[in-house]
Amino acid sequence: MGQRESTGRQRWAYLGPEGTFTEQASRALAERLTGPIDLAPAGSVSLALDEVRTGRADAACVAMESSVEGAVPVTQDELTHGEPLLITAEAYVPVTFDLLVRPGTDRSAIRTVGAHPHGHAQIRGWLAAELPAAEAVMTASNAAAAAAVAAGELDAAAAAPVAGSRYGLQTLVADVGEVRDAVTRFVLLRRPDRPPAPTGNDRTSLVLSVGNHPGSLLTVLGEFASRGINLTRLESRPTRSRMGVYYFLVDADGHLNDPAMADVVAALIRRQALLRWLGSYPRAAGVNEVTADFATPDAYRQADDQVRRWQRGG
Amino acid sequence: MGQRESTGRQRWAYLGPEGTFTEQASRALAERLTGPIDLAPAGSVSLALDEVRTGRADAACVAMESSVEGAVPVTQDELTHGEPLLITAEAYVPVTFDLLVRPGTDRSAIRTVGAHPHGHAQIRGWLAAELPAAEAVMTASNAAAAAAVAAGELDAAAAAPVAGSRYGLQTLVADVGEVRDAVTRFVLLRRPDRPPAPTGNDRTSLVLSVGNHPGSLLTVLGEFASRGINLTRLESRPTRSRMGVYYFLVDADGHLNDPAMADVVAALIRRQALLRWLGSYPRAAGVNEVTADFATPDAYRQADDQVRRWQRGG
Amino acid sequence: MGQRESTGRQRWAYLGPEGTFTEQASRALAERLTGPIDLAPAGSVSLALDEVRTGRADAACVAMESSVEGAVPVTQDELTHGEPLLITAEAYVPVTFDLLVRPGTDRSAIRTVGAHPHGHAQIRGWLAAELPAAEAVMTASNAAAAAAVAAGELDAAAAAPVAGSRYGLQTLVADVGEVRDAVTRFVLLRRPDRPPAPTGNDRTSLVLSVGNHPGSLLTVLGEFASRGINLTRLESRPTRSRMGVYYFLVDADGHLNDPAMADVVAALIRRQALLRWLGSYPRAAGVNEVTADFATPDAYRQADDQVRRWQRGG
Amino acid sequence: MGQRESTGRQRWAYLGPEGTFTEQASRALAERLTGPIDLAPAGSVSLALDEVRTGRADAACVAMESSVEGAVPVTQDELTHGEPLLITAEAYVPVTFDLLVRPGTDRSAIRTVGAHPHGHAQIRGWLAAELPAAEAVMTASNAAAAAAVAAGELDAAAAAPVAGSRYGLQTLVADVGEVRDAVTRFVLLRRPDRPPAPTGNDRTSLVLSVGNHPGSLLTVLGEFASRGINLTRLESRPTRSRMGVYYFLVDADGHLNDPAMADVVAALIRRQALLRWLGSYPRAAGVNEVTADFATPDAYRQADDQVRRWQRGG
Repeated sequence: MGQRESTGRQRWAYLGPEGTFTEQASRALAERLTGPIDLAPAGSVSLALDEVRTGRADAACVAMESSVEGAVPVTQDELTHGEPLLITAEAYVPVTFDLLVRPGTDRSAIRTVGAHPHGHAQIRGWLAAELPAAEAVMTASNAAAAAAVAAGELDAAAAAPVAGSRYGLQTLVADVGEVRDAVTRFVLLRRPDRPPAPTGNDRTSLVLSVGNHPGSLLTVLGEFASRGINLTRLESRPTRSRMGVYYFLVDADGHLNDPAMADVVAALIRRQALLRWLGSYPRAAGVNEVTADFATPDAYRQADDQVRRWQRGG
Repeated sequence: MGQRESTGRQRWAYLGPEGTFTEQASRALAERLTGPIDLAPAGSVSLALDEVRTGRADAACVAMESSVEGAVPVTQDELTHGEPLLITAEAYVPVTFDLLVRPGTDRSAIRTVGAHPHGHAQIRGWLAAELPAAEAVMTASNAAAAAAVAAGELDAAAAAPVAGSRYGLQTLVADVGEVRDAVTRFVLLRRPDRPPAPTGNDRTSLVLSVGNHPGSLLTVLGEFASRGINLTRLESRPTRSRMGVYYFLVDADGHLNDPAMADVVAALIRRQALLRWLGSYPRAAGVNEVTADFATPDAYRQADDQVRRWQRGG
Repeated sequence: MGQRESTGRQRWAYLGPEGTFTEQASRALAERLTGPIDLAPAGSVSLALDEVRTGRADAACVAMESSVEGAVPVTQDELTHGEPLLITAEAYVPVTFDLLVRPGTDRSAIRTVGAHPHGHAQIRGWLAAELPAAEAVMTASNAAAAAAVAAGELDAAAAAPVAGSRYGLQTLVADVGEVRDAVTRFVLLRRPDRPPAPTGNDRTSLVLSVGNHPGSLLTVLGEFASRGINLTRLESRPTRSRMGVYYFLVDADGHLNDPAMADVVAALIRRQALLRWLGSYPRAAGVNEVTADFATPDAYRQADDQVRRWQRGG
Repeated sequence: MGQRESTGRQRWAYLGPEGTFTEQASRALAERLTGPIDLAPAGSVSLALDEVRTGRADAACVAMESSVEGAVPVTQDELTHGEPLLITAEAYVPVTFDLLVRPGTDRSAIRTVGAHPHGHAQIRGWLAAELPAAEAVMTASNAAAAAAVAAGELDAAAAAPVAGSRYGLQTLVADVGEVRDAVTRFVLLRRPDRPPAPTGNDRTSLVLSVGNHPGSLLTVLGEFASRGINLTRLESRPTRSRMGVYYFLVDADGHLNDPAMADVVAALIRRQALLRWLGSYPRAAGVNEVTADFATPDAYRQADDQVRRWQRGG
């Protein structure tokens, strides 16, 4: 800690190994927010977050959701059930897969292709058409497959372009993934503290715990709608305890310091529907819906003033 | 004014003449609230209210609604459009009609029966069956009919029992009205000031101005429902300007000093749906619905505290 | 009956006496719908409706609501509680009050002015300013006041212009009412039968019976909103049995033969919220809201066809 | 095909290899529904479904959701985007992981433990505590790990108990998974046809496509609520095309042949919110909520009859 303070550099944990999309996202966030940082790869999302919780790192950068696969389960579960952390920033990284080989490798020599099972799901079509004889080998991450190629254990890896330069590999074929315009959203997590100041284009993330009886999700969504709050994301997660009972991971336009957002968060607390406030932070993509007339800070202030005047007989 | 202050007696206006249900209601309210008062009959509801607005009276007692006829139009219109006054108390008076005659009058001698047209609507059946030959004479009020009987201008009047004693008449037949258990609700109006302190069993009266587009009443009613506020009355009134556009006169369980009621009133103000707050005052009949867990003052305080802690990073 | 059939003329009852706004409305409706009719004045709204119920008249024309006073209580109560009749047409009549006198009467000679109490409510301001010394005399109807003027019993009457010609009176001052653009809506009632064919610009009238518990009106209004049905009128009426319990008189855009309206009416029946269907008939003023895409007859037919195909495995 | 017909045995595809939870579910379903079947392992969920689509198999059994991980992405995507199939039955299988070894293997000899990454997620805790030195090896499925143990390529596998008997392995430690009471829900898919007859305790599965504007999910959920239809599952899936746009996978109490369900499905079609009806089939766990009075078949039939009588003037 002392060292970091003297150098002024922050230390961020991320899901390693080196060469992952997460490293790319971390560097993009650091450039935007703080300038140079020390990046520390961790063996898993949970280990990266523990670095922050224990104070060994200032922040952790982890994948939150993919436009193809949806929520990243381990991140969701950590944010929902682990020791609380706050989202303070987000970044979007386009997800493309290159077929990486050791320099000089010929396509005809490829007998094994490594990737994480999710990566394999993305290149299955390409592989069946172009390298039907190659064996698909599962690895713990796409970057691990690249490392295995560098070590001579595999012939090729499907991985992020950044992994190629990291492990001294060559891109044999670029962009072999099936889904065009795939993108992953990363978040930067810190220990709970005052949220970043509102910018006018912010997002608030919440975990809702919605009762099992009919209409309860309807009621909770009504709390947002009646305050003009737009939801940009609503994903269910099973509760782990009982099939058919869900948490909902919600992203909403606005900052907890906006009166309308503070109002809806208080309403969710009163209804015992808010499991966690996960943070309020600047949006990195898109802009908030225009705030309805009845939900602006001015509308709130004027209404509150009027009610207080009537209560006092003024 | 000086005189009232020296005697300590309040002066209340009411819709006269003497001998009306309104006088009865005024006396009941005075007994409950203030002790002896000076009661000043006024020629109309509007004149009674003007006594208060100009400061010549401390309060006015007027009929608000009847279990048979619904809202009293002139009272509703005065509360909606006139110079603002606040409801500070309410009283319920059972409405019964006696057939009143000069002492000694025989039933066979009755050729004319006076009453306000509303009164006649109540006794039409009885009259057709029992005095089919008698002529129904319309008067400006039932008490005016009683006065006309006393003056010898009519043979009988259908009026409140109190009118009999007031004008020296005799009850020939009691309770000739058609509707059993008819009751009228009266309210006591004062110049705007701090509302009476909450008692735990209060009512709040509002005038809503609901836009003409589909779903707008639905939205407004949703504001009450989502805060657990029970409505005991919802009456529409035409706006006077355009057929098909309505105000809604609403009574709701709770006091403006209750957080849930303050919350819904603020929401109505923000939506420009609140034309007027008409007052918060103790209920004189019935008890409030049990407050939902999510709408208690404690639930509000705890949720507000939590949001503030998060905003400050505490 | 035989005579009517041979002449082809219908017999309609209306609230008399002659010279009322209702007579005006009846003549306008007859002209639009049937050609010449025999008009039979009745002594009350209830008596006019009984003429139809017993078959002595083919139809009855009665006032339904006024832009100033709102619903006409006796009409509402008859439609809600009386032996069922159906609305088959509507008409709007502008309501203006003329001050009518015997020909040659001078303004200075007016000592008494007759009108129904509702009429007096409309001219109170004019009378106070222009004839402050005149006595306001209540009569059973404005036309009755005109008749009394013709008979020499009163000096002047505030009544419909048509009453002047009917009783040989002269208009001393035109349009003495307080509310500009006042208009009354009249309806033509017949014995229950197939409703008039849809015209594409129809109205459906309903009486809702909404339970007393919180949210029940909200639920019922949601049935209309979710089917894109626009309400042009929503008026509450006390139930006569218990203060705080209401019926709601509703006018909605559309015809019972439209699938969306049939759908919402069926939903109200299932919820035991429909006390009565009062009829579906052409609108005489204004045009329906544009039907939402999801509520058109085509949308209904296609969706029903699809569901049936799935059910059959087709 | 001829062969199957002559033997009367059906051929079902499932996600192999042999020894998976899916095989267990298939056998349980066959026992309940059809008697002996020929089970054909397929290399992936997609290949299993293609067997049905091309007519080579009568049905396919695949995992739909896990109480721990939520929806199975590939199944959801196939049901949402692939050539349509219908769910005709469901089964629940408890998910437990045994640590499987070759007979005679000692715990101290375990250097590598194979499992699918999801399986590793379940045993991570146990492994860290009990076999901290063992290497976690990712395989394409847990059963593939068991096969690799049998082949001598790995020392141990975490897999379903059924995999032990299938591959001649021994359970060294039973139930090493982290989540108690984990259960997976499997569904049986067939080519589109008439759904199984209603049993009174059925489930209907749907894919909703909910517009991106605020309140659209609220509106769609309101269609279910207003018809008394209980949802037992609501899971979001990204649309693959745009971050922030979701499909919703919904399970609801009831059968498409129930009037209330047919009604809500038609409403979803009209709103262009129904991407797919995935089938109506008997529930294998739990019982439906009691149907509200206003949503029973009787309530529907009576209301429809009444509306038709009114339309005809009957």
